[in-house]
Amino acid sequence: MMGEFDLIREYFTREPQRPESLLAVGDDAALLQVPPGHELAMTVDTLVAGRHFHEHAAAEDIGWKCLAVSLSDLAAMGAQPSGFTLALTLPNANREWLTRFSQGLFDIADRHQMDLLGGDTTRGPLSVTIAAHGLVPAGQALRRSGARPGDLIAVTGTLGDAALALDLGSHATQALAARLHRPEPRVGEGQALRGHASAVIDLSDGLAGDLRHILKASKVGARIELAKLPRSDDFRRMRNQVPRLFPTDASLHYQLSGGDDYELCFCLPPGQLEWAREAMPGQFTLIGEITAGSSLQWVDVSGAQAKLALGGYDHFSGQGS
Amino acid sequence: MMGEFDLIREYFTREPQRPESLLAVGDDAALLQVPPGHELAMTVDTLVAGRHFHEHAAAEDIGWKCLAVSLSDLAAMGAQPSGFTLALTLPNANREWLTRFSQGLFDIADRHQMDLLGGDTTRGPLSVTIAAHGLVPAGQALRRSGARPGDLIAVTGTLGDAALALDLGSHATQALAARLHRPEPRVGEGQALRGHASAVIDLSDGLAGDLRHILKASKVGARIELAKLPRSDDFRRMRNQVPRLFPTDASLHYQLSGGDDYELCFCLPPGQLEWAREAMPGQFTLIGEITAGSSLQWVDVSGAQAKLALGGYDHFSGQGS
Repeated sequence: MMGEFDLIREYFTREPQRPESLLAVGDDAALLQVPPGHELAMTVDTLVAGRHFHEHAAAEDIGWKCLAVSLSDLAAMGAQPSGFTLALTLPNANREWLTRFSQGLFDIADRHQMDLLGGDTTRGPLSVTIAAHGLVPAGQALRRSGARPGDLIAVTGTLGDAALALDLGSHATQALAARLHRPEPRVGEGQALRGHASAVIDLSDGLAGDLRHILKASKVGARIELAKLPRSDDFRRMRNQVPRLFPTDASLHYQLSGGDDYELCFCLPPGQLEWAREAMPGQFTLIGEITAGSSLQWVDVSGAQAKLALGGYDHFSGQGS
Repeated sequence: MMGEFDLIREYFTREPQRPESLLAVGDDAALLQVPPGHELAMTVDTLVAGRHFHEHAAAEDIGWKCLAVSLSDLAAMGAQPSGFTLALTLPNANREWLTRFSQGLFDIADRHQMDLLGGDTTRGPLSVTIAAHGLVPAGQALRRSGARPGDLIAVTGTLGDAALALDLGSHATQALAARLHRPEPRVGEGQALRGHASAVIDLSDGLAGDLRHILKASKVGARIELAKLPRSDDFRRMRNQVPRLFPTDASLHYQLSGGDDYELCFCLPPGQLEWAREAMPGQFTLIGEITAGSSLQWVDVSGAQAKLALGGYDHFSGQGS
């Protein structure tokens, strides 16, 4: 009943900290002041139990990941995170679950100084929708549409860890499991790339699918060197510990179409490479380059075009060669 | 699969129309430019099948009502609606349902010149979350906290129609059913009240509960004359066509705690009454006044305090006298 759900608000009512957050939870709407010379980046994501996380997953991890997903979108725009609203649908108001969920949520919110500006709680099957917003200097947002032939293609961090952890289940190392349950969105890197990268996207569905969004928006093609895809130490060690699901190397499945990486894929005009090496040392790996045309080519270690049979989602079928 | 849900985006991708909508669906986040001297009002609401609407309700009505609920919140802040994001969770991608849902959604969006700026579609039990935003001149948002003793209390339109229509089911008149399925948020009235009303809230849970939010935020009490609660012609005619659920007059249940009115309740300093009569002729009804203290008193036609036994939600128990 309402009384119970009124209680829930107690777990999520905190005084806003940021100067642009004028009014938070407690009125008909929140009020935000966008500083002069800035634009607002806005994104919305829903995570549903049984689809994006296990119904019995640790509540603090669910809270963390829900906001991490949105932060990754803001990072890919080059935005400074500012705040978010939370729409929480719950089968019931379990105090322990709420305590832990809000703890995970505010852990990552605090790390990025984000205010919770409003919310709605409803009874129903467990799902979480977060609408997050961030500030970006006017005209400097990082879009998907600016890549040009000759631009270098880079990714932050390593790829495939989260997807491998999901398949490994309880056999995953702590480092791999953290990549799945507590992704660290590349917020600082995104802001650093403003004025330097020609196109940026965050990797949530896997590089193969997400890179295509850049190619389509920028009307270009790409050539990716498979041997250069960055792998973590634990990934190298554990990647063959799960039953082979694919005829080719399973590593490529995890790295290209596994999803849940929450790294940034960005394009750099060659003249920006020196800047990047100084400003983001050790934080990115070059994996290929933008080409004219519209095809996405995968190149193996011998330099030959690789034919990939990527499993997973619909949108890969018939592609990847 | 993703392919199917990629298709869904086609139903919701339209070019933004408003000057402040810089970038809509199709990148990692949308971009919004808040004009100088303005603040952004933001609200989020989730509607879940089986709780806020019947799973087999007309899809165009669901689309309409989801946005109407958020528009009513923006109206209560005195904001000019600007845009929204949509998070849609669906058991499957039924083309006819999507066509009709998007039609109802864009019908009301167009009426208020709102842009759809972004979205997320997920497979799961049917639910809709809308995060809407609007513009308000800096410092002029209508809050809940400004009511002072002696202020007049008014409501727009009529109360109780939607709740009565819900109980009447297929016996409801067309006018009553429209109030339930196609509420008309008081957007124009909300903007007109800027600089005049001392406190405003939108009526979604019913006057008894919602007015208490103003009293609490403003640290005041109120006296409401029950005989003055505005009733529509159809409400007067049909209100006794449903089995009596309450010991007292069922009309009061519908008007005070039925919910789903989406009218505005506002407080007017007495000196603003003349302005209101000229600026909003026939668009509001005076129903009582703000008092010192913190109690909410109901007064019957004889001027005596009425003892109400309001059914419905938890938060009324032990109150209302």
